[in-house]
Amino acid sequence: MAGGGSGPAARRATEPGPELADLVDRARRGEQRAVGRLLSMVENAGPRLREVAAALAPHTGYAHVVGVTGAPGVGKSTSVSALVGALRAAGRRVGVLAVDPSSPFSGGALLGDRVRMGEHSTDAGVFIRSMATRGHLGGLAWATPQALRVLDAAGCDVVLVETVGVGQSEIDVVSLADSTVVLLAPGMGDGIQAAKAGILEVADVFVVNKADRPGAARTVRDLTYMMSLGQNASGWTRPVVRTVASRGEGVDDLVAALDAHRRWLDAGGERHRRRLARAEAEIEAITLEQVRGRIAALRGSATLPDLAKRVVAGELDPYRAADELMDAVGPS
Amino acid sequence: MAGGGSGPAARRATEPGPELADLVDRARRGEQRAVGRLLSMVENAGPRLREVAAALAPHTGYAHVVGVTGAPGVGKSTSVSALVGALRAAGRRVGVLAVDPSSPFSGGALLGDRVRMGEHSTDAGVFIRSMATRGHLGGLAWATPQALRVLDAAGCDVVLVETVGVGQSEIDVVSLADSTVVLLAPGMGDGIQAAKAGILEVADVFVVNKADRPGAARTVRDLTYMMSLGQNASGWTRPVVRTVASRGEGVDDLVAALDAHRRWLDAGGERHRRRLARAEAEIEAITLEQVRGRIAALRGSATLPDLAKRVVAGELDPYRAADELMDAVGPS
Repeated sequence: MAGGGSGPAARRATEPGPELADLVDRARRGEQRAVGRLLSMVENAGPRLREVAAALAPHTGYAHVVGVTGAPGVGKSTSVSALVGALRAAGRRVGVLAVDPSSPFSGGALLGDRVRMGEHSTDAGVFIRSMATRGHLGGLAWATPQALRVLDAAGCDVVLVETVGVGQSEIDVVSLADSTVVLLAPGMGDGIQAAKAGILEVADVFVVNKADRPGAARTVRDLTYMMSLGQNASGWTRPVVRTVASRGEGVDDLVAALDAHRRWLDAGGERHRRRLARAEAEIEAITLEQVRGRIAALRGSATLPDLAKRVVAGELDPYRAADELMDAVGPS
Repeated sequence: MAGGGSGPAARRATEPGPELADLVDRARRGEQRAVGRLLSMVENAGPRLREVAAALAPHTGYAHVVGVTGAPGVGKSTSVSALVGALRAAGRRVGVLAVDPSSPFSGGALLGDRVRMGEHSTDAGVFIRSMATRGHLGGLAWATPQALRVLDAAGCDVVLVETVGVGQSEIDVVSLADSTVVLLAPGMGDGIQAAKAGILEVADVFVVNKADRPGAARTVRDLTYMMSLGQNASGWTRPVVRTVASRGEGVDDLVAALDAHRRWLDAGGERHRRRLARAEAEIEAITLEQVRGRIAALRGSATLPDLAKRVVAGELDPYRAADELMDAVGPS
């Protein structure tokens, strides 16, 4: 009963139609409207999500994905905006995904919707998207991996993923990013908070923002000391960059640090290894989600209730029932 | 590739061997050692778990499963012990599963291991098991549904499941129990805590324990008032029983309230409906767990890494990769 006729048909349906192929072509040329439509399609997880994913796949894998995280108040949005400016000045195409549960913008928000990104919103080389966190995969919106693929296919040299550094979200961004920037601001409290959240272990580049404030030197010193306690197995020496993002100070240093990290990732094959691990996690998550979805669909049919009846009647143990359910939800 | 030859063989392996059939027979006659061995087998989730589940299935569905929950300090263990005494005095066979993350006893703890249950530990009609909470299914140990089946098959008329009423665990016990007892003790704080945890909605029977203490009347009044605010859709009027469990006072009233609830559940078909819903949830959880387990097994093989490689190379989108993974993990 498994592996039957429905599979090939379902897969044929994921071939991109001519309209979608045209949309992807236009996105690859950098058309803001086409990029926006593709982002909406992956965010809404509609019936065409698979089709979009298939159409994007051949055009991905180029962008340098940079996660930017840190506690509220350290200046994440200001830093991201300053980074966009510096990257654009170097002629690079930039994408920004702002994943922030406190954002006033919904998942369907339009490109250029962020007030603080206003200066970049008319720049054709910048793609900005605010994504509401929704769904169950921690703080980072579940649609984020697909949205990253859209911006990657749109020819972005760098995609910045900004998340609030609370709870689980900084771990999520790490699992998505090639390079992770952890922002701190003067004041030992932030450093301790960061250490608690396990953020020090996952950072590739540290930024002490608001470096003109009292205590900046102390924060840098504390950070350097804390790093000296842990063994860095990867061989990458994590730089500590001082910035005053609101005035653009130190931002070129940050760009240089990120470029150096990318070169290091590429040289040792580490970038490829990270991408493989990320792809494995993503494939597994999609598989489990599909099993869940198919089981939910079977609630409406007689299959799951029938199995439950037989378990309650003692005719079937729950493990055999799970086998039968697996047969029913089996390969697409 | 799916639905192939491994399935029937895997299922044949779940037929109980003669040794296991003998063990189940001895457990059904109430032999403590046989019950203990079966509990260990399901707790350890070893290769024979499926075999045990299959052997137990025809002998389950009789026990009245009673969840007992409440905040720390309200007297849960004392109340459970008093309930065991009252039920034993009425000649009923009783099982106790103590699911408590703060328990000093491990999941492999022996029968009769609970100090406070000492008085019952030499009684052949009482089966007591402390289960450490482990695994990922919230506060209640994942093995609990299977352990319940063991005690059910062992001919227990009533199985008491004691959980600490913190976080998610009271919801878990509700999803397992036919009847849920929520314990409170004098002092409005407890009442408010309970309301916050959503515990008022899930209770079938309320117990105000330590009813000899100042404030007991007030707690009963507050509880009655809070219940009057919510509509009771089920048609069951939830009783509020006063007890002083440490002296056995009111415990017969609690037994009577539980018996009345069981009669009400049976008369309206509600017990069957709850068991069906519970079986559906259990089948689904086992299915997802098996998919997860099979994916984990594929990490060691080339399947998942190969799929990840093709996704990273852009040859395959992650949704098609998930299809292929689903084929590989497909029906057993």
